[in-house]
Order: sequence, then C-alpha cells, then structure tokens
Amino acid sequence: MDKLNLGATIPAYPMPVSLVGAQVDGKPNFLAVAWFSMVTYKPPRIAIALGKGHHTNPGIKKNQAFSLCLPSEDMVEVTDYCGIVSGKKSDKSKLFNIFYGELPAAPMIGECPLSMECRLVDTVATGLNEIFIGEIAGVYTEEQYLTDGHLDFEKMKPLILSQPDTAYWGLGKPLAKAWSVGKKIKAKS
Amino acid sequence: MDKLNLGATIPAYPMPVSLVGAQVDGKPNFLAVAWFSMVTYKPPRIAIALGKGHHTNPGIKKNQAFSLCLPSEDMVEVTDYCGIVSGKKSDKSKLFNIFYGELPAAPMIGECPLSMECRLVDTVATGLNEIFIGEIAGVYTEEQYLTDGHLDFEKMKPLILSQPDTAYWGLGKPLAKAWSVGKKIKAKS
Repeated sequence: MDKLNLGATIPAYPMPVSLVGAQVDGKPNFLAVAWFSMVTYKPPRIAIALGKGHHTNPGIKKNQAFSLCLPSEDMVEVTDYCGIVSGKKSDKSKLFNIFYGELPAAPMIGECPLSMECRLVDTVATGLNEIFIGEIAGVYTEEQYLTDGHLDFEKMKPLILSQPDTAYWGLGKPLAKAWSVGKKIKAKS
Repeated sequence: MDKLNLGATIPAYPMPVSLVGAQVDGKPNFLAVAWFSMVTYKPPRIAIALGKGHHTNPGIKKNQAFSLCLPSEDMVEVTDYCGIVSGKKSDKSKLFNIFYGELPAAPMIGECPLSMECRLVDTVATGLNEIFIGEIAGVYTEEQYLTDGHLDFEKMKPLILSQPDTAYWGLGKPLAKAWSVGKKIKAKS
C-alpha cells in the first residue's frame, strides 16, 4: 500500500453530467454541469455548483428557478457543446425541444430522458463557485424509460464525465443489489 | 414527447458512491455516501450531504475533518455493509487498512484506489440533511491506478449507485473526448 499524495487538488472523478436550464436575458439557456448532487429527500432538494462567471448564474438568481436535465449517451455532442460555448456568445435556446412544468423560468429538454424543475431555496458561495440549492417541483420522464413503473437507467443511458482525462463514459453493467449485498458481511460479524 | 410528471421527488440517479471516513467517539468510522460533489477548484473543495441522524456527523463537527474514499467494484460488499450498518451498532474501524495523511481525524482506506482528506470549512443545513463542505488537503492514490501520470478510471473501476432500483453499477466504456466532441456543432453554428 504505497500511497502517492497528489496534493491539494480536485480529483474530478467520473460523475453524471447534466444540462442545467435557466431563463437568462429572456431566453432559455443550457449549461453542462457535472458538479451536482441530491442533498435531501425531505423536502426533495438538489444542489449544483457553478463557477461564478457563468452566463447562467444571474438568470437563476433573478428568476429563483432552474432545471436539471440528464442527457443520454446519444446526446454527447450537444452536451459537450453546451459545456464549451457560453450563452454569452451563442443562443442555445434552439438546440432542443424545450418544455415547461410548473415553473416558467425552468426550461427543460424534451430529448433528455429525465428532467427536473427546481425552485431556488438557497445560495452558498464557496471559493470561485456558487452552490445553488433547488427544491424539486417536478420530475419528468417518458413511459419508454420506465420498467414496471420504475426509472430504468439501462434504458436512459446516463452520460458520465471524468475531468482529468476529459472523457465521457457510459454506465456499465449492474453488479449487485444495494442495501442487500452487504448483508453477507453483517451475517458474519 | 409525452412527458410523465413523477411529482416532487428525488430521482436518485446513478452516482458514484464513496466511503466517508471520520473519527467518531475516538474510533475511525466509515459511511457509504453517494450524495457528494466537487464544488470549487480554487480552493479545492468537495461537499457531502448526510442525514442529520448519522453516527458520522458529530465526529465531523467535533474534529472539523473527514475523508472521502472511492471504492472500486470489487469492494461492493463492504461498501454496502457500510451503508446498512450504523457505527452506533457496529465497529467499522477494523474493516479496512486505515492510513492517514495530514489530518489525524480523517481516516482513509488503503483498499480504495482514490481517497481524499478534507478540512471542514462550512456546514449548511438543508431539510433533513447537513451539507459538509470540505477543503481537500491531500489526494491519495497508487502507481497502479495511473497511466502516464494521470488518474486512470478504467483501472480504478469506480462503483456507482442508483437508488430507486437499489443497484450498484460499474463504469461503462469511454464514449468521446470532453471539451472536444461538441466542436462539431460549434463549427456548424
């Protein structure tokens, strides 16, 4: 166990990548964001961490709303485009079939297998970024992505991003049941 | 595009799962946590969202430190065990070869291909959870997980968890280069 210390750095590990939607200067805009996490079940909330300079941030603050849309593998080109081109320079509102739920300032992407619309409930500044905590008002999918009424991630084909090696990945194969496979160790202990 | 609204709920999408280490009641303890994200590069910080009732939380607050260790696919049983058994009931300090970097209250797991030690810099209460924001003091890996000096996630084999279907997954295949594949659209626009 010879460990190497890479130092005080960000090991931007493979994480699912999302397209964050917001209404900015009167237009829907979408930004590729891999830095997000669920943060609480009750009420249902999700957090996203964005660099302060993004075109998206003032739109989220002004309208107190954003969306988080999960693209599939076959959306890799357009997702990457939304990460490399700023809404300051390019109109990204025509890239997708946009739909709305309850919140008029949370544009969502029809092509994404899973989308959620969020009301901004908290903003936390940290380093060069801002964390936006959103309360989920609605989660949208389609019948084709469900199996027996449940979200089926093999059908959704999430897109995963690792940053040190600048690579997009697919989701692999199911390995084991969660809250279950560890019971073998529990039985022995 | 017939969208179904699943309502105001948490679509706990496939996310990498970590083992969060903390010193609790004088002993190292490890909790399985999939709700984490990088939050800023400068300074390097990561956030984890934990239910308020976990055994781990008071240890993080008291010692102002925690670790985040990324298990590989072959650690699926022990990772799951650390999610289903509380440190209140079971001593999890003997499950792993523990090592330390700079922070004496951030126990790390030798078996994990990637681990980071963090100083607590902020705590944000949200719903039933607490978000701990940690500044990364060190990132630890081994030569066997590097290719040409860079983190190689195909060698690390990250473990991914989706919650609605209680499934662990492996990472799939690389699909495309990030900050690159989207240039095809940029060239056309």
